Amino acid sequence: MSIMPVLSDEEAGAAARAVFDDIRDTRQTDFVNNFWRVLANDPALLARTWDKLKAVMGPGSIDPLVKEMIYVAVSVTNGCQYCIHSHTAAARAKGMTDQQLMELMAVVGAANETNRLVNGLQVPVDEAFLSDPKA
Amino acid sequence: MSIMPVLSDEEAGAAARAVFDDIRDTRQTDFVNNFWRVLANDPALLARTWDKLKAVMGPGSIDPLVKEMIYVAVSVTNGCQYCIHSHTAAARAKGMTDQQLMELMAVVGAANETNRLVNGLQVPVDEAFLSDPKA
Amino acid sequence: MSIMPVLSDEEAGAAARAVFDDIRDTRQTDFVNNFWRVLANDPALLARTWDKLKAVMGPGSIDPLVKEMIYVAVSVTNGCQYCIHSHTAAARAKGMTDQQLMELMAVVGAANETNRLVNGLQVPVDEAFLSDPKA
Amino acid sequence: MSIMPVLSDEEAGAAARAVFDDIRDTRQTDFVNNFWRVLANDPALLARTWDKLKAVMGPGSIDPLVKEMIYVAVSVTNGCQYCIHSHTAAARAKGMTDQQLMELMAVVGAANETNRLVNGLQVPVDEAFLSDPKA
Amino acid sequence: MSIMPVLSDEEAGAAARAVFDDIRDTRQTDFVNNFWRVLANDPALLARTWDKLKAVMGPGSIDPLVKEMIYVAVSVTNGCQYCIHSHTAAARAKGMTDQQLMELMAVVGAANETNRLVNGLQVPVDEAFLSDPKA
Amino acid sequence: MSIMPVLSDEEAGAAARAVFDDIRDTRQTDFVNNFWRVLANDPALLARTWDKLKAVMGPGSIDPLVKEMIYVAVSVTNGCQYCIHSHTAAARAKGMTDQQLMELMAVVGAANETNRLVNGLQVPVDEAFLSDPKA
Repeated sequence: MSIMPVLSDEEAGAAARAVFDDIRDTRQTDFVNNFWRVLANDPALLARTWDKLKAVMGPGSIDPLVKEMIYVAVSVTNGCQYCIHSHTAAARAKGMTDQQLMELMAVVGAANETNRLVNGLQVPVDEAFLSDPKA
Repeated sequence: MSIMPVLSDEEAGAAARAVFDDIRDTRQTDFVNNFWRVLANDPALLARTWDKLKAVMGPGSIDPLVKEMIYVAVSVTNGCQYCIHSHTAAARAKGMTDQQLMELMAVVGAANETNRLVNGLQVPVDEAFLSDPKA
Repeated sequence: MSIMPVLSDEEAGAAARAVFDDIRDTRQTDFVNNFWRVLANDPALLARTWDKLKAVMGPGSIDPLVKEMIYVAVSVTNGCQYCIHSHTAAARAKGMTDQQLMELMAVVGAANETNRLVNGLQVPVDEAFLSDPKA
Repeated sequence: MSIMPVLSDEEAGAAARAVFDDIRDTRQTDFVNNFWRVLANDPALLARTWDKLKAVMGPGSIDPLVKEMIYVAVSVTNGCQYCIHSHTAAARAKGMTDQQLMELMAVVGAANETNRLVNGLQVPVDEAFLSDPKA
Repeated sequence: MSIMPVLSDEEAGAAARAVFDDIRDTRQTDFVNNFWRVLANDPALLARTWDKLKAVMGPGSIDPLVKEMIYVAVSVTNGCQYCIHSHTAAARAKGMTDQQLMELMAVVGAANETNRLVNGLQVPVDEAFLSDPKA
Repeated sequence: MSIMPVLSDEEAGAAARAVFDDIRDTRQTDFVNNFWRVLANDPALLARTWDKLKAVMGPGSIDPLVKEMIYVAVSVTNGCQYCIHSHTAAARAKGMTDQQLMELMAVVGAANETNRLVNGLQVPVDEAFLSDPKA
């Protein structure tokens, strides 16, 4: 059960509906998922969050499908069920195959394992990894 | 300070040295970083971990550079300093530009933020995201 | 499904019931929520945990409503569904408005984002932040 | 060692310097801390992050000092050293006493403990906590 | 709802079924739980994961029941519901009593609390804890 | 650098010194590590934390060495450097061998990996794991 109501188009105020419209326009779909409908309880937070995601997840120097995979990797590490479902769906819509999904999970699993082996043994960072970042 | 000694080639036993040799062979470099030298205190753990990473991070349906970016994303989310340094170096060696690095961080930051907005508001998963995975 | 039974007043032993009574007394309500009823399977753990929370969450130099908000912030970051529901309810009972709730989530989201930007880029701590804590 | 260079005013481009100026203006200080100087490697990310924090952390329905305490609580839970130092400094600048700092830590510690007791025992959410959020 | 299908013996390919058979053989039961049936969508990942767990969780210098308790402790800290249920069941099957379960939770809770007190106060590591690991 | 001063015996107040004395008495050593010396800035928090740890980590239904291993497992998962060093030292003092330490890390690593495979694939909990906890 949600902490704040999932607002329909009618329940959302004008400012929130304007964001819904931009989401529909940008994604070329009439579907506005629950995340935005709950954020609509704070139209300024909704607008800021949507503007940020549009800027971050859109075309750039990293492929949008790769960005979705990175999003899934973080969500899996944090155990965010909603985010795993929504961003896996987004990655699939952008072309992720089942084979790639399984391979993504294997990488995420391995990283979480070695992160802890490193933590646990307190491995000192190699000098070779600390060279001047400007060089 | 490491919890277990960082073993030189001389200090490592024959089983561990055989893994070091395979690392050098696979990566085409003489450099064996501290992670492996600390794992060498348990040659079976060293061998299993290296075999796994070689299988997971090698060529497959996801590009090796993308896999390194995913590894970095997980390590950043977990706050593993060593892993951030070593896998950023690996990603750079595979071609990641500074622009891509900054964009990767932006995606990881955004995912960590929205993961918590979703958690905090307990957004219910949309039916649309729960369609039959076999379909 | 709970890992250990949710004990009713009748099922709980005398030591656990004494804690239930103190909870009712302190909160001025007959309601004892499931957290305490599951902890009741280990009366010593129940008593220690209740005594601690009573000491920590009660009046002090930080306002009790603010303490509940901090509790929610931690629970959201950790993704603890039960804790998010129970402490949001507690914060609302102490006067948190919907506007404050949304603002709290915005702060928690932002902190989780910048925590990762800092991790990912390994930003060195400014000297200005490391001044003598006794000064 | 930072992953990307900590840019001085001279090294930062015009877009980044404009953000630095707004930081100085808003905070009424000449000091621009390393977080912003590293983000300056991606001026768009820098501008978005600063605009967001200015909006989120400024005056609203929650007191700015309380917001800083919430920020510290998240940073402590995530173990972000830089963020703990910078936001503790910010909270102290806004009036947090040593007594409040210790009390904040006690709340954060208690929340992290009970989050795990709840997780571990899989305590079911009480019906009383799931009442209609619109009610 | 699972992201990938939970494969029955008939749906799983020959390679996956061979792993299922080894699981049945090793555990002396006909039951193969869902974790393995979902991993079966990537037979190589299934085989690697099973081989690893068999090696790690089997007899060694740490008692198998203690290993299951450690597994539960990690799963509770990460909030992995499935893992808490499956490894608590495994620990119980190996002899863990209810009293030990409650005591395990108390230790996990306490560790999560003091981890944050240490983080939050940035306690410097004592020299005494940093003695030469080879000594 | 610590956020609050590391108090010497002389700087600590009488209430804190009484706790230091009990630590010395219980552990049969003159050494009081930094964790307690920083908590001493809030004598009530110091006393509560020490009393709790003494109750939780002492003899019970789980062996004290096993409890220390569980503590290390949590600290490694959370990446708490101080806690890893202090509780590894405590486990060694109670008899943990290097072989056991490496095996502990292998279990912690494996658990962190499979926790994420389960999260990522959203594996449904088997009915067999959800049997009546009272049965």
